[in-house]
Amino acid sequence: MDLVWICVIVGIVGAAVVAYFVRFVLRQDEGSQRLKEISAAIREGGLAFIHREYRTLAIVVVIIAIVLALVPWTYPGLGRRMALAFVFGAICSMGAGYAGMDMALRSNGRTCAAAQKSLNQALKVSFRGGAVMGLTVVSIGIIGLSILYLAWRNLPEYQFLYIIPAYGTGASLVALFARVGGGIFTKGADAGSDLVGKVEAGIPEDDPRNAAVIADNVGDNVGDVCGMGADLFESYVETVVATMTLTTVGVILAPWVKDILFPALAPDEALQRAWLLPLLIMAAGIVASVIGCFLVRVGEKVEMSALLGALRRGTLGATVLAAVFGFIIIWRLGANLGLFWAMLAGLVAGALMGESTNYFTSYAFKPTREISEASTSGGGATIIRGFATGLMSTWPPIVLIAVAIIIAYKFGSFYGVALAAVGMLSTLGVTLATDAYGPIADNAGGIATQAALPPEVRERTDALDSLGNTTAATGKGFAIGAAVMNSLGLILAYAMAAGIVTISTGGQLNPLPPQLSLLSTPVIVGLIIGSLIPPVFCAMSMKAVGITTAAIVDEVRRQWREIKGLMEGTARPEYGKCVDIATRIALKQMLAPSIMAIVAPIIVGIVLGKYALAGFLIGALATGFILAITLNNAGGAWDNAKKWIEAGHFGGKGSEAHKAAVVGDTAGDPMKDTAGPSLNIMLKLMSVISLMLAPLLANFPGLI
Amino acid sequence: MDLVWICVIVGIVGAAVVAYFVRFVLRQDEGSQRLKEISAAIREGGLAFIHREYRTLAIVVVIIAIVLALVPWTYPGLGRRMALAFVFGAICSMGAGYAGMDMALRSNGRTCAAAQKSLNQALKVSFRGGAVMGLTVVSIGIIGLSILYLAWRNLPEYQFLYIIPAYGTGASLVALFARVGGGIFTKGADAGSDLVGKVEAGIPEDDPRNAAVIADNVGDNVGDVCGMGADLFESYVETVVATMTLTTVGVILAPWVKDILFPALAPDEALQRAWLLPLLIMAAGIVASVIGCFLVRVGEKVEMSALLGALRRGTLGATVLAAVFGFIIIWRLGANLGLFWAMLAGLVAGALMGESTNYFTSYAFKPTREISEASTSGGGATIIRGFATGLMSTWPPIVLIAVAIIIAYKFGSFYGVALAAVGMLSTLGVTLATDAYGPIADNAGGIATQAALPPEVRERTDALDSLGNTTAATGKGFAIGAAVMNSLGLILAYAMAAGIVTISTGGQLNPLPPQLSLLSTPVIVGLIIGSLIPPVFCAMSMKAVGITTAAIVDEVRRQWREIKGLMEGTARPEYGKCVDIATRIALKQMLAPSIMAIVAPIIVGIVLGKYALAGFLIGALATGFILAITLNNAGGAWDNAKKWIEAGHFGGKGSEAHKAAVVGDTAGDPMKDTAGPSLNIMLKLMSVISLMLAPLLANFPGLI
Repeated sequence: MDLVWICVIVGIVGAAVVAYFVRFVLRQDEGSQRLKEISAAIREGGLAFIHREYRTLAIVVVIIAIVLALVPWTYPGLGRRMALAFVFGAICSMGAGYAGMDMALRSNGRTCAAAQKSLNQALKVSFRGGAVMGLTVVSIGIIGLSILYLAWRNLPEYQFLYIIPAYGTGASLVALFARVGGGIFTKGADAGSDLVGKVEAGIPEDDPRNAAVIADNVGDNVGDVCGMGADLFESYVETVVATMTLTTVGVILAPWVKDILFPALAPDEALQRAWLLPLLIMAAGIVASVIGCFLVRVGEKVEMSALLGALRRGTLGATVLAAVFGFIIIWRLGANLGLFWAMLAGLVAGALMGESTNYFTSYAFKPTREISEASTSGGGATIIRGFATGLMSTWPPIVLIAVAIIIAYKFGSFYGVALAAVGMLSTLGVTLATDAYGPIADNAGGIATQAALPPEVRERTDALDSLGNTTAATGKGFAIGAAVMNSLGLILAYAMAAGIVTISTGGQLNPLPPQLSLLSTPVIVGLIIGSLIPPVFCAMSMKAVGITTAAIVDEVRRQWREIKGLMEGTARPEYGKCVDIATRIALKQMLAPSIMAIVAPIIVGIVLGKYALAGFLIGALATGFILAITLNNAGGAWDNAKKWIEAGHFGGKGSEAHKAAVVGDTAGDPMKDTAGPSLNIMLKLMSVISLMLAPLLANFPGLI
Repeated sequence: MDLVWICVIVGIVGAAVVAYFVRFVLRQDEGSQRLKEISAAIREGGLAFIHREYRTLAIVVVIIAIVLALVPWTYPGLGRRMALAFVFGAICSMGAGYAGMDMALRSNGRTCAAAQKSLNQALKVSFRGGAVMGLTVVSIGIIGLSILYLAWRNLPEYQFLYIIPAYGTGASLVALFARVGGGIFTKGADAGSDLVGKVEAGIPEDDPRNAAVIADNVGDNVGDVCGMGADLFESYVETVVATMTLTTVGVILAPWVKDILFPALAPDEALQRAWLLPLLIMAAGIVASVIGCFLVRVGEKVEMSALLGALRRGTLGATVLAAVFGFIIIWRLGANLGLFWAMLAGLVAGALMGESTNYFTSYAFKPTREISEASTSGGGATIIRGFATGLMSTWPPIVLIAVAIIIAYKFGSFYGVALAAVGMLSTLGVTLATDAYGPIADNAGGIATQAALPPEVRERTDALDSLGNTTAATGKGFAIGAAVMNSLGLILAYAMAAGIVTISTGGQLNPLPPQLSLLSTPVIVGLIIGSLIPPVFCAMSMKAVGITTAAIVDEVRRQWREIKGLMEGTARPEYGKCVDIATRIALKQMLAPSIMAIVAPIIVGIVLGKYALAGFLIGALATGFILAITLNNAGGAWDNAKKWIEAGHFGGKGSEAHKAAVVGDTAGDPMKDTAGPSLNIMLKLMSVISLMLAPLLANFPGLI
């Protein structure tokens, strides 16, 4: 039997577990009438946003697909197949995001209802709601890749090689729009709702008299659930794409490459197995993730530490299993056993990066508490200390990535680097599940307040939410690491596919001409220009949040002015208007930064040439990596520094220190939830577009 | 006559003009007894700081000099000469910083006294006080370089090549300590004084009852004058060092190199002239700068726009003259006339980078006014908008540098890149003069308030100060551009001196082995680790400011508690204590980041090898460039957004918007005056240390 069918079967098993979780969640009590109303309003807003976003996206996807089909590629019919793969990738990504978000929207009210009974029940509902997203992403991912593999792997002259990057590009494009659009929506609505409600009118968060509260709740879903899902779906499939491309070009260019991968096999057989290897490791990871999901359970009487322990058990268990399965696969496929160390390096680096993020952003540790302390000297001090923490927090991830690269390269040459990324992402199913459950719990809390449920319900959902912050921080660190390793694999694949580098007998990449020297003009100019893209992209997306916020504030003010009885609670605000405004502006604002990310590598490739494009991608990776970590962790630390003060330290809620901490939290929100995470995707998208264009650029020296 | 004597003579002429300006300033009225007292207190504090800083520095310099002398270099006696050059570089830098700062300290009280008469008179005194710094730096620079040239250029086997980087390293080391130490002092004292005075006690800025006011005034001098002077002294001499090294290695390695420089000459003669060329262009720039300084004059009745026009006339006039002189020199020396375009590219890029900074940070333009507007939504919005502006402002400088590199390379190969930096820095004398006058005017304002002079005096000094902000912004943009071009030249020189690259017949640098490929593991790991250094360095220096601030706040509070009659104005605070505390902490805190910058390239070079070190330097350059611009411009824009509100917009002083803007200003201070500018030097220092170590690393493959 062709081994790829194992992957298909695992994908189907994953889907079955998804169905089981869906059935479990849907059978839960939906709560009171009021509760149902609120969660229906949030669902309506979320779906409305997604529908409109997908309509915009569909236009872009169709245009690009037509262009791809019309470009005169090397082989007849290749363009059509690439266009098809591209559309397929986009649809898979949309489907994964949609399914995950819809489930999150159905779980939030039920989590709230469950929280009326017990903390444990609420954890179960929200975690399984989140696990639907996690397992959907990986199941669709592996089934989609398997279909591509089965359909086109036997095309003559390895045309498969040119088709799979198009699939990745489709997924990447959707992810970028989802992350940027969702990020602008969520933070614009959040900040607008807080500014006009908490700050201006002095009413509590999630107060139903605030017309923006539903938009705020919708935002958590479109940004943190759908955006995150699309982001990691992209990483997931693109690591496989990068590994397959690297192997193919490697084996084509230098027969000895197969010797370091599959010493005992004939070249063609080795290539087939090298294509299978990442798919099988991913499949094993899905099995490990499913087991991990079921390991997340606590007894009836639980404390916070037991909850965290339960989630940890899930992810850690899956990690250990994935490592064991990975070793067995590498061994049974007859591959060089050194590859196991490469995979393990990625797996371990990913887990540790998450822990590092947690250290720098959780108020259980010194860095965040120091920000709380600095807040006693005013908002300026909060900002400085938080920003310094964000900058400082770059060192563990960078050192981890550097060490992982060195190990992976030592044991598996350039192929090892790609395999390290595969290892890192193999347990995505469970990592993403622990991540996606947070926004569900957050939403449940919002619903509890709006439905005026007893305070112990909100306390329970707050406990879950706070735990969700920890897992979200870990998840974000992981997502950045995955994006960087993945981009690196894609850049290496680009360089080989564009014919910039060949492979010498040492297992080293060999630059053909002087042009790829780090110090040649095109490379250095490309690198400098590349380093510019991430900051400009961040500036654009942060500004977009500001514009959305201002519009929301205006609308809520207008409703208070014009709708009589609103403040007294006798009339209902028009929630839909705020959702509508946030949707419209977010979708408009997401276009400029997204298009820049699509167009920049193409322009650099054409004007400055293929060598400059390699420099460009590396330059963007360097500043993008630093900025993504800094913005994420500074934002997370500010958020939790505020929470630490709210927990009764340095004067507690309402003190001057608290006001200062709120400034940090407000400033950090668009950094950590819009700009920072979008950078991940931007880096991957630029790399995969370059890879897709590599065959065209191969014979293109650049215009200057 | 040996042409180098022209440089010496120009240096002496520059010194004579300095003496003329000194005499002019010293003959000005010192004002009332109270005024003399205050300015004496500031001078005392400033000199005390410098003396202690130089004592710390002297120890580090001596230790490094001994190490240099003991290292077994390729030639006998080379270590001793390098140690000598290193100490000489350090002494020149210290001397330039000291002389400039001492003059600034003598000019501030006199400017205040002059402001009692007229705005024009105050401009004259403060500008000439600042011009002393500008012309001292360039005069000492050119004389020092000429002495080195005369002493050692004829050593056998071009040992000169190994000695001059040691001179640059000496200057660089002093600059780093001066910038970091001065930056921590000035912002720690500033923030501490504001927090405890304006915010806590509600007394005006510069109120004499605040024990930290003198420390605040001292800070302007040790940070903005002495630190800036040392920074640009370093850039000045190191551009010449980079150019000379590049030429030498180039001519040694490939005889054709002399053909693109001096087509008509014999190799040895060509080399001598290639060494002279940067020195002569610098000399011409000094002449242009002196003329520029005298062009800065206004009539008796002046408005702000006339003041700005006068300063612009000075810098623009000098730029045009430098270009004309440069062309004449290149032509008369018999050099390839294409080199003129390389030099011009640098000159123009430097001027435009200054303008770009001005656009993004002056409240005359949209970006800063938008930050003022965002402040109406609170401190969080101020931070987001300002930070987005800082990020966005990276694009003009990066595009300018990229274009300058392309042009310079096209017309002068790698030598052109170094010559572009020479062009950029040739008019440093006048640029630095317009920059150094700002802190003098700022100090004069502080003295006016402390001496309780009539309000129109403060108004006049405020007008000068505000103009000084514009020129300081321009100067900072220029300093970053100069640092980047200079680092690039040094990195190229390093790569050639370490034998990483050779030169092919196309004028392209030629990577010898695959190891310098952008995508080889050592290079990529080096690049990733290099990208980490700037953020960590910034985090350390920003945190150091926070520590200093806290100590100052405690001390002022203690004095108010313990000294009776202080708040009533019947007793004097112990100003010296605050100066002393800020000095002690700043000098202690500057050590860790400075030592990291010194040690990091050495460790990378030894552990990861010479190829990784090239990647490391480029990685640091990429993130350092982005961070330096972002921090400088965000900080500057926040500062001026606050001033725009204080000028009566969005509610004016005391409004909620103003409070939000103050948060931005406070947060931006350590970014723009400590972390941002220190990055310039860090980049240059790491590059020049690598260049100095290149002969040792040439035969060193790295430990892994």
